[in-house]
Amino acid sequence: MEVKFAKALRQTAELMERELDQYLPESSGLEQQLYEAMRYAVLSGGKRLRPFLVIQCADLFDVAREYSVRVAAALEIMHTYSLIHDDLPCMDDDDLRRGVPTVHKKFDETVAVLAGDALQALAFEILADPKTHPSAGVRASLVLKLSQAVGVRGMVGGQTMDIYANGDDISMATITRLQQLKTGALITFACEAGAILGHASPGQITAIRAFAHDLGLAFQIADDILDVEGKSDEMGKAAQKDSDAGKATFVSLLGIEKAKIHANMLSNQAISHLSCFKGSADLLQDAAIFTVKRNM
Amino acid sequence: MEVKFAKALRQTAELMERELDQYLPESSGLEQQLYEAMRYAVLSGGKRLRPFLVIQCADLFDVAREYSVRVAAALEIMHTYSLIHDDLPCMDDDDLRRGVPTVHKKFDETVAVLAGDALQALAFEILADPKTHPSAGVRASLVLKLSQAVGVRGMVGGQTMDIYANGDDISMATITRLQQLKTGALITFACEAGAILGHASPGQITAIRAFAHDLGLAFQIADDILDVEGKSDEMGKAAQKDSDAGKATFVSLLGIEKAKIHANMLSNQAISHLSCFKGSADLLQDAAIFTVKRNM
Repeated sequence: MEVKFAKALRQTAELMERELDQYLPESSGLEQQLYEAMRYAVLSGGKRLRPFLVIQCADLFDVAREYSVRVAAALEIMHTYSLIHDDLPCMDDDDLRRGVPTVHKKFDETVAVLAGDALQALAFEILADPKTHPSAGVRASLVLKLSQAVGVRGMVGGQTMDIYANGDDISMATITRLQQLKTGALITFACEAGAILGHASPGQITAIRAFAHDLGLAFQIADDILDVEGKSDEMGKAAQKDSDAGKATFVSLLGIEKAKIHANMLSNQAISHLSCFKGSADLLQDAAIFTVKRNM
Repeated sequence: MEVKFAKALRQTAELMERELDQYLPESSGLEQQLYEAMRYAVLSGGKRLRPFLVIQCADLFDVAREYSVRVAAALEIMHTYSLIHDDLPCMDDDDLRRGVPTVHKKFDETVAVLAGDALQALAFEILADPKTHPSAGVRASLVLKLSQAVGVRGMVGGQTMDIYANGDDISMATITRLQQLKTGALITFACEAGAILGHASPGQITAIRAFAHDLGLAFQIADDILDVEGKSDEMGKAAQKDSDAGKATFVSLLGIEKAKIHANMLSNQAISHLSCFKGSADLLQDAAIFTVKRNM
């Protein structure tokens, strides 16, 4: 299992590197730094797990790869914008991301804010482009879902909660909601986008959303466990950061052992939602297992 | 003329205040500040010239007001995000906007970055919503045009040029391109959106775009003149800011008299592009005159 999944994930990452490169031209002139920062942030590697989910979910419905790979690129570009802004001094103030200096460290804060802003716009531009799908209804639907996933009732709302959450009096319900907004909404979009591209039935969409919901939460709990147990050289970012900052996480609330049990339970539950796709969702099952077993 | 135009502009501003209010709910909980900052920035008045242009251009094609007012709201929300980020300490570092403290002064930098991010997403969410137009093709087209107008080859590119431009060796060609990207692209979208909503013919779209191009440039030159001659209490923001900063503007390059002649010429040229709409574009003509005569 692991070999097959690892290979598929690596192939997706290579595919995405080539695909993403096409949307990020170079430039001379006064905007040069902006273009460079966008390329630097987007093409700096990463697991590309979100693109993998888009493509695998689209494959369930035999969507042409030329469409799903564009949606995967839009999503990864959106995710990258959020990382750039989250790393800013006025946010999480991080110096390192994927093993290299964050954008505001490599360039400056001005460029980091602007590169993030431009990447958000670019993500929507890619989705709305007729090349992404011949049906305008599909394109408009993708834009609507992604805008909701990243807005005030999604990712940005979750990031705000995260910054203003006080570690001492945060409940399990609050942190679950926070993480569903901050990271879960984009993972749900990744999976649902495949279903939208594939004109999935309402029942299939419900199954995909349920899978994504549990996967997203498992992913976040695994992240919190990694923050405590992981090595910063393997993760490419600082470890023990949340615990040092006294931040509430699933681990601080549940303890490390219960957090692991909870993550595994969610991973199994995610897999169970895929039963309606019979044998065609093997790699998505593997993704759910990888999510809680990864060391980066 | 002026009375009729001033009344129409004021009526649009009142309409927009009610319309915009609907997209910006209040919230308690950890995201409260984010919601408050979004409302504070969007509902703090302003001329609402861009919404006025959307609605007037849509009226040329008898577009239902319920559609054009939503596009106008999306555009104003996008414009507001750009103001919030432009005012940040790492950008233009402004304390005052529309006569009140800027968002990072009233709240903090964190909230200002996040509110801008959420407003950009909200603008696209409104455009992609089926309530904005029954045709998904129209909605996808609006998203595509707006994303291009605000991205790296539009507004954000222009803002980057503006920050890295060196006042001493900037040419007339460079500042014209800079301003076309920074402010012109969004004004062009305002006018073109009306044409897209109204299924305008290619010839009509060309005329509308030419009008918007000249209007946008005239608007910016008038802004530069106001920066030198305007009073900060009338404008609601600091005056003489660009000249104090030694920034290149149309006025610093042309001198104040030539800049006024150039702005008037562009305003007249903008009006001439409307001739194909016969008598139905009176208020757009007035807008072109207002653009170079305003004192705020």
